[in-house]
Amino acid sequence: MTKESITKSFQDLQNRICQGLERVDGKSKFQEDLWTRADGGGGRTRTIGGDGIIEKGGVNFSEVHGKVTVMMKKNTEINGDSFFASGVSIVIHPHSPHLPIIHMNVRYFELDNGKYWFGGGIDLTPHYIIPNQAQAFHAGLKVICDKYNADFYPKFKSWADDYFYLPHREETRGVGGIFFDHILEDENNSKEDLLSFCIELGDSFSDLYEYQVECGIHESISERHIDWRNTRRGRYVEFNLVNDRGTKFGLVSGGRTESILMSLPPVVKWEYCKEIEAGSPEEITLDSLKKGVNWLAK
Amino acid sequence: MTKESITKSFQDLQNRICQGLERVDGKSKFQEDLWTRADGGGGRTRTIGGDGIIEKGGVNFSEVHGKVTVMMKKNTEINGDSFFASGVSIVIHPHSPHLPIIHMNVRYFELDNGKYWFGGGIDLTPHYIIPNQAQAFHAGLKVICDKYNADFYPKFKSWADDYFYLPHREETRGVGGIFFDHILEDENNSKEDLLSFCIELGDSFSDLYEYQVECGIHESISERHIDWRNTRRGRYVEFNLVNDRGTKFGLVSGGRTESILMSLPPVVKWEYCKEIEAGSPEEITLDSLKKGVNWLAK
Repeated sequence: MTKESITKSFQDLQNRICQGLERVDGKSKFQEDLWTRADGGGGRTRTIGGDGIIEKGGVNFSEVHGKVTVMMKKNTEINGDSFFASGVSIVIHPHSPHLPIIHMNVRYFELDNGKYWFGGGIDLTPHYIIPNQAQAFHAGLKVICDKYNADFYPKFKSWADDYFYLPHREETRGVGGIFFDHILEDENNSKEDLLSFCIELGDSFSDLYEYQVECGIHESISERHIDWRNTRRGRYVEFNLVNDRGTKFGLVSGGRTESILMSLPPVVKWEYCKEIEAGSPEEITLDSLKKGVNWLAK
Repeated sequence: MTKESITKSFQDLQNRICQGLERVDGKSKFQEDLWTRADGGGGRTRTIGGDGIIEKGGVNFSEVHGKVTVMMKKNTEINGDSFFASGVSIVIHPHSPHLPIIHMNVRYFELDNGKYWFGGGIDLTPHYIIPNQAQAFHAGLKVICDKYNADFYPKFKSWADDYFYLPHREETRGVGGIFFDHILEDENNSKEDLLSFCIELGDSFSDLYEYQVECGIHESISERHIDWRNTRRGRYVEFNLVNDRGTKFGLVSGGRTESILMSLPPVVKWEYCKEIEAGSPEEITLDSLKKGVNWLAK
C-alpha cells in the first residue's frame, strides 16, 4: 500500500461522503475550494449550507507533506525529518435544534523512517439528547468496529469519552462515539485492515447521520429550541478552540485557517450563567453529558 | 502597602467603574455574583446588559491566594510555594456595530518569597475602525502613561500590538492600546506609583469609553453592519479562546468558568471565507489590523 493509494482512497471517500450528504440535505450542493500548502501538499475543502437540512457543513480532504518543523516537534510526538499526512474531516451543523451536530475524521500519518499510524474518530453532539438515537449511533459504530477487532469499540468509545470532553465545563461534548490515534498493524489487524476500517467508518457516515435526521426532522421548532441550539453551539466552539488538539495543531502549524475553522457553527450565543429550568429537556441533556455512559444499554 | 490595601484599592476601583459604566449605558444596572475559590479567595463578578448601550458586559474583581499548583508552575514563570493575586478585569460588548468592544485588566501578583509585580492592559476593538477615534483612545492612554514614565506608552503600546494578535488570521485584535506584565518598582517608579498607575488607568476607563460611544452612537445601523459586528465578534472569541494567556490560565487552573468566559460576545457568527467588497468600510478595517500603526499620528 503506497502513500499515493491511501491518498486516492481518502479522495474517493470524500467524493462518496459528499454525494451522501447532498442526498441527506435534500437541497444544497457542495462548493469546492482547492488549496496548496507552501511547504508541500494541499487539499480540497468542500462546504455546504443553505435552505436544506444543513445550515453549515464541510468535508475536507487534505494531503500534506514536508519537513517536520520545530513547531510540530514541540506539539506532537513526531520524531523524524519529514512527514506525510492525509485524511478526511467533516463537521455538520444542521438548522434544526432537534438534529445533532456530527463530526468525523480519519487520517493516515507516515514518517520518513517508515513509521506510520492511523487515527480518527466520529462523535455525535445532539442539542437535545434522545437516548434511543444515541443508542442507534453507538450500535452502528460497534457493528463496524466489531468487524475488525472486538476490542475496538469498547476501547475507542472510552477514548472518545476522554477526548471529547470540556474540563472547564465538566461536560462531554455530546454523546460521544469513537476516537483512536496512533493505531498500527499488529497480529490481529494488517495495515490494509486499518485503512479499510477507516474507509468503512467514512462510508457509514451519511447513513448514520441520515437516521438521526429522520428521527428529529418532524419535531416543531420554537424560539426556545433555537436559543438552546445556539448556546450548545457555544460549547462546540469552546471545545474546538480550547481543547481540540487537531484544531490547535492546525492553527499553530500554519494550516489553512478557513478550512480548519470551517468546523465553527454559523450562529452562536453566549449568555452569562444561563438559567436552566428544573426537569426541562435542556436540564436532562446537561445531566447526560457524562463520561462512561453505556449508550448501547439506553 | 499591604496586600489588603491593594485588594481594597481594586474593590473600590470596581465600584467606581461600575458606576461610570451604568452612566454610559444609560439604562441597565449591574448584577453581582459573589463567589469563593475552594483553595482560597474569591471574587465579585458584576454583569450588565439590556436595552441600553451595552449588550453584554462584565466587570470582575477577584482576590485569590493559596498554594502554587503544579498546573500553575507549568503554565507560568511562577516560582514559589504560595501566591496572592488580585485585580479587576472588564469586557464590554455594545449593541451598535459603530461602537467598539473594549477590554481592560489591572492586576497585582505576590509570592510568599516577597516577589511581586503588576500587570494589565486596555485595548479597543472597533467593528469599524475610525482613525480619529483610535487616535483619541491612544492619546488618552499616553497622557496617563506619561504621568508615570515617558517609556511606558511606547513600550506598552508595542507590547499590546504583540499581545493582542491572532497569528492564524494575521490580524491584530483591534487598534490595540497598552499591555504590560511583570512590572516592578525601579529607580523611576515606586511600588505606590505602579499601583497608582493601575488605578488611574482603571479610573480613565469609563471616560475613554464614553467618548467612543458619543462618536458612534448616532450612526444608523443596517443588517450589513450587524452581520459584520457578529463576524468581528467571532475573531474576539478566537483570540480569547486560542491566544489569550489569561483565559487559558484561568480555565486550566480551575477558575470560575462563567466569570472567565463572561468576556465572550452574546451573539457571534462564523461564515466560511466571508467575501469582503473591495474598498468597503469592512475592507478598510481589515487592512488596518496591523502591528506597528502609529494611531497617534492618524
